[in-house]
Amino acid sequence: MVMTATGIELPPIWCPLAGARHPRVEEIERRAAAWLDRQRVYRDESERRMVLGTRGADFCARFTPYADEEGVLLAALWVYWACCFDDACCGHGPLSAAPERFARLAGQVQRALEAPTADSSAERFLPPLQDFARRMRRMRSPVQAARFAHAHRAWLSGVVWQIGNRAESHMPDLDEYLAMRRLAARGEPVFALLEIATGTETPDREFHRPAVRALTEMAMTVATLDNDRHSLHREPAAGHSGQNIYTVLMRDRNLAPADAVQEATRVRDRILARFLRLLPTVLAGAGPELRIYLAGLCHGVRGNAEWGLRVPRRPAETPPPPGAAEEPLEWAPSPADDDRTPLPAPSVAWWWDRALE
Amino acid sequence: MVMTATGIELPPIWCPLAGARHPRVEEIERRAAAWLDRQRVYRDESERRMVLGTRGADFCARFTPYADEEGVLLAALWVYWACCFDDACCGHGPLSAAPERFARLAGQVQRALEAPTADSSAERFLPPLQDFARRMRRMRSPVQAARFAHAHRAWLSGVVWQIGNRAESHMPDLDEYLAMRRLAARGEPVFALLEIATGTETPDREFHRPAVRALTEMAMTVATLDNDRHSLHREPAAGHSGQNIYTVLMRDRNLAPADAVQEATRVRDRILARFLRLLPTVLAGAGPELRIYLAGLCHGVRGNAEWGLRVPRRPAETPPPPGAAEEPLEWAPSPADDDRTPLPAPSVAWWWDRALE
Repeated sequence: MVMTATGIELPPIWCPLAGARHPRVEEIERRAAAWLDRQRVYRDESERRMVLGTRGADFCARFTPYADEEGVLLAALWVYWACCFDDACCGHGPLSAAPERFARLAGQVQRALEAPTADSSAERFLPPLQDFARRMRRMRSPVQAARFAHAHRAWLSGVVWQIGNRAESHMPDLDEYLAMRRLAARGEPVFALLEIATGTETPDREFHRPAVRALTEMAMTVATLDNDRHSLHREPAAGHSGQNIYTVLMRDRNLAPADAVQEATRVRDRILARFLRLLPTVLAGAGPELRIYLAGLCHGVRGNAEWGLRVPRRPAETPPPPGAAEEPLEWAPSPADDDRTPLPAPSVAWWWDRALE
Repeated sequence: MVMTATGIELPPIWCPLAGARHPRVEEIERRAAAWLDRQRVYRDESERRMVLGTRGADFCARFTPYADEEGVLLAALWVYWACCFDDACCGHGPLSAAPERFARLAGQVQRALEAPTADSSAERFLPPLQDFARRMRRMRSPVQAARFAHAHRAWLSGVVWQIGNRAESHMPDLDEYLAMRRLAARGEPVFALLEIATGTETPDREFHRPAVRALTEMAMTVATLDNDRHSLHREPAAGHSGQNIYTVLMRDRNLAPADAVQEATRVRDRILARFLRLLPTVLAGAGPELRIYLAGLCHGVRGNAEWGLRVPRRPAETPPPPGAAEEPLEWAPSPADDDRTPLPAPSVAWWWDRALE
């Protein structure tokens, strides 16, 4: 049991999936930091500390522990870039409640990713993204690059949605939140990095199967909700105005903060339980690339949770060196809710469709 | 030579591509109208007249003249739906300068397309879109449905961008306009309807080749610019505040309206000329499905132009019956510009890359 800054008890995370970490994590962190310095992704020393403090290399090393070093590094470059962009333009800063300006920036960002010739002079975040895109096109196939680009646009569309809600002081209900937040919290591009890091290309007809899509969305959503938990751990909790699973449930279900934490855990565990029940059926008929992809979803969920539990709570805290032996974590032995019926959230209820099995 | 309402001469369109129209266009129009009535896509008789006046069935019959009737009908349902949605929520109406509210609506619309269980009770445009999506999933493969969904999100992201510009009274320059308008003007989903209508599935490794993507973007952009021309023909032109190729060039290049019309024709013809030069190289190495797709791009450009030239200028005008024999149109014999260098617009300059050839 962990306490938040405001004294709310956070139950341990339920995640019966194996964890691993890429053995070259130190070298990957060093090389990513050198890229950040070269590309001047950050504006000053304090931003540099913030972005390195997110430990994006550690995140990617857990997310894709069996990819080769170059692949994990490629993924880490985007993760660091996106942290910095997110902090300056999405979650904070002058655009964070200005959807009209952010929508244009999002258009430019997306085009910088897609078009090798796009003008990147207008905005400091564009040249490093173009450098990442050049590396991605050099190392990966056009199919993989296209999948990443689609995921990237989905992310930006979710951020505009979230910023629009903020501008209107609109608090989404659970259904809207689950549809919006998976996008805004980088779920789509981060999980698209699985194929970018490993270099595996799942054939289209398997990749776009509804059951594979459902598993992907469930994995993203569990990771997103775990990130809300990690943020609650780091930031003042009760009553704050941001859109997260706790404020959403407090408003939607009229719950006190501590009850919202319990309910959020049940929502999250019901999704992971459905993921774990559907997974073997899909694995049974999967080809070799899809098997790697599905294993990646599992590493993604577990790696994200473990990164979130281990990353220092405040940027000022000195983390242990990346390769250091790790203290074991406490995990919940069973899900907080074993209800097998669909969540009362129409936008995701189809994950429970029998036809997927 | 055609005159606009304000007396500006519009040169004829250059388009050396074969045109055709599906022979069952009358039946398709009748069936699509019955669907619109059943689904209550419009709000009143005047909206019904407006949406039927767009002649979406005629558009699709020219766009995909060799698809089977069920496929053209499926495409037409979306085209009619999108016209009505666009008119009520994007180009006009209370959301047309309210990006914060439109971004949320866009999120709900996209989720209604993707998730069969999504709640569609909040907005009258959602149930008909879900009905279209159900039909699409029944008739087409998950790969085709996923491609359409990506294109659909790209469209909505472009509309938010355009609405944000309107809210800020920001007039884009040519580079921004070419990146934004292809999206906002439905270029992506309309051209994704090529595969939805024909049922052809281009293998992923061909579909995502950069040269195929460049041809697709060029075809979309030519069609978009032709639509700006058609709108100029129908609406008062000079000095109005909307974002179109003429107002963009007037502002960006400091041109009088008549000169902006000439310059816009040169921009558009340079893109089509590049498309026509690149096409044979790509066709040479194309498999059977890609050949059908590339032929579709050609029908798309030509069909869109011809539909725009033949659709009545004002909703009140009675059109000839859909199957009637057609007067020949006047076409320009040669491009207004034979400059083979890239357009001075970085976001699209890569279409001229030698590596694509």
